[in-house]
Amino acid sequence: MRIARHRDGRVVRKKDTLAVEEPLEIRVSWTAGERRLVESVAITMRTPGDDFELVAGFLHGEGIVSAADDVQELTYCRGDEAQEYNIVEARLRAGVPFDVDAMRRNVFTSSSCGICGKASIEAVQATGCSMLAEGFRVSAALLPDLPDRLLVGQGVFARTGGLHAAGLFRTDGTLDVLREDVGRHNAVDKVLGHSLLARALPAQDRVLVVSGRASFEIVQKSLMAQVPVLVAVGAPSSLAVDLASRFGQTLVGFARNGGFNVYCGAERVA
Amino acid sequence: MRIARHRDGRVVRKKDTLAVEEPLEIRVSWTAGERRLVESVAITMRTPGDDFELVAGFLHGEGIVSAADDVQELTYCRGDEAQEYNIVEARLRAGVPFDVDAMRRNVFTSSSCGICGKASIEAVQATGCSMLAEGFRVSAALLPDLPDRLLVGQGVFARTGGLHAAGLFRTDGTLDVLREDVGRHNAVDKVLGHSLLARALPAQDRVLVVSGRASFEIVQKSLMAQVPVLVAVGAPSSLAVDLASRFGQTLVGFARNGGFNVYCGAERVA
Repeated sequence: MRIARHRDGRVVRKKDTLAVEEPLEIRVSWTAGERRLVESVAITMRTPGDDFELVAGFLHGEGIVSAADDVQELTYCRGDEAQEYNIVEARLRAGVPFDVDAMRRNVFTSSSCGICGKASIEAVQATGCSMLAEGFRVSAALLPDLPDRLLVGQGVFARTGGLHAAGLFRTDGTLDVLREDVGRHNAVDKVLGHSLLARALPAQDRVLVVSGRASFEIVQKSLMAQVPVLVAVGAPSSLAVDLASRFGQTLVGFARNGGFNVYCGAERVA
Repeated sequence: MRIARHRDGRVVRKKDTLAVEEPLEIRVSWTAGERRLVESVAITMRTPGDDFELVAGFLHGEGIVSAADDVQELTYCRGDEAQEYNIVEARLRAGVPFDVDAMRRNVFTSSSCGICGKASIEAVQATGCSMLAEGFRVSAALLPDLPDRLLVGQGVFARTGGLHAAGLFRTDGTLDVLREDVGRHNAVDKVLGHSLLARALPAQDRVLVVSGRASFEIVQKSLMAQVPVLVAVGAPSSLAVDLASRFGQTLVGFARNGGFNVYCGAERVA
């Protein structure tokens, strides 16, 4: 698109590229006895692309699927032209249980017990998350370089500045997979959904790097994939540290300019 | 908390401050005939503080309330100690209509027509958003200074680096109100909720400044408050520009280092 660029009191008309943002509706189809049911479970604003990975990663993060085989098929729902690629249906394999009411409760909690940070952490445990294995190590010399390696892999970002990125790295610094999105949580879903579909989960020997900050949601998704080390370019929140600490994850923040901070799980930093 | 700070190959143990992140459940209580009903409508991860403003702003952004008088009372739901301040109930004044099913549909869309960017923009119109008034002007000299003025007002941010900020400014550069949160949309809800409760909406002669990027959601909330000029420190998304343009809003991005970009509504930049 054409924009007006103001610099030092001068205005220049120039072309600019924007990160695309479009809604994606995620539907789950499952069998109940003889019947096959379909329910819409989420709408998220995302950058189109790698939508099947996004859906697979979302369902894995919510504890709905635990392996690639749980997903029989991922398809776009065909409709009128404008929305053709904005609805993805995940068809669960027959026999994979799906509790649509539990899914609803995640969004509309009406329980009298209410919510708090502690309850949020217990809810993660209830979806099947467990303590991470010990033994994995990553070099302290590698960690501050990872955000630069993430940036090198980001093509669209350089043009628009509007995209978050997430990348899964090996301990030798090799980038396994990188995904970008207007939403940081979507970028993480895409990366981990890719791993799920490639049968590369759990990611017990990988480091996940995210641009920006580490929130509760980012830690939750990475824990479901058993990622031992999570590295954020920005700051973590208090609840992100509480959650990572609870499940024995190593949480690194402010990884940039040659340094980084370790908030918990320092034993994995060699 | 105590962290391990790695810089240039050296490790220093030091104290660090984190941005607090805790879930907030938003409940709406309304009258239907003789009965008063209560429903949980949303859970958001937020930084505690200014919770009533957050709830008021959220309800205004969703089109549920349009004036301070629509809200009879805002209260914390008392329960066990840990969650005492994590549930807020907004009691709507008798006679204020509330369509809980429409609220549900916003989250669980099951309609066959599906969704797309165009439908998202039409949904904003359906919640009562209209074209912004013309005539408002803001000086091009002021715009690049606003992010610095926002930063000056940010106390906690300087310590943690983990918080987004939103601020409402007058055209002379005076800051009306500033709020911070781990979520940028929450910071915007707090600012606009403050304005609603202070009977200062619509904000037709104000400039809203947000740290980070401008997404669809941020534009939507600002349009509901009839904010004529939205300024983001980072990039806008494609759908953010589409939505701002549709309702005649001025959208400015990359406001920093003495410059800024105008994506639409350039006539308001004097």
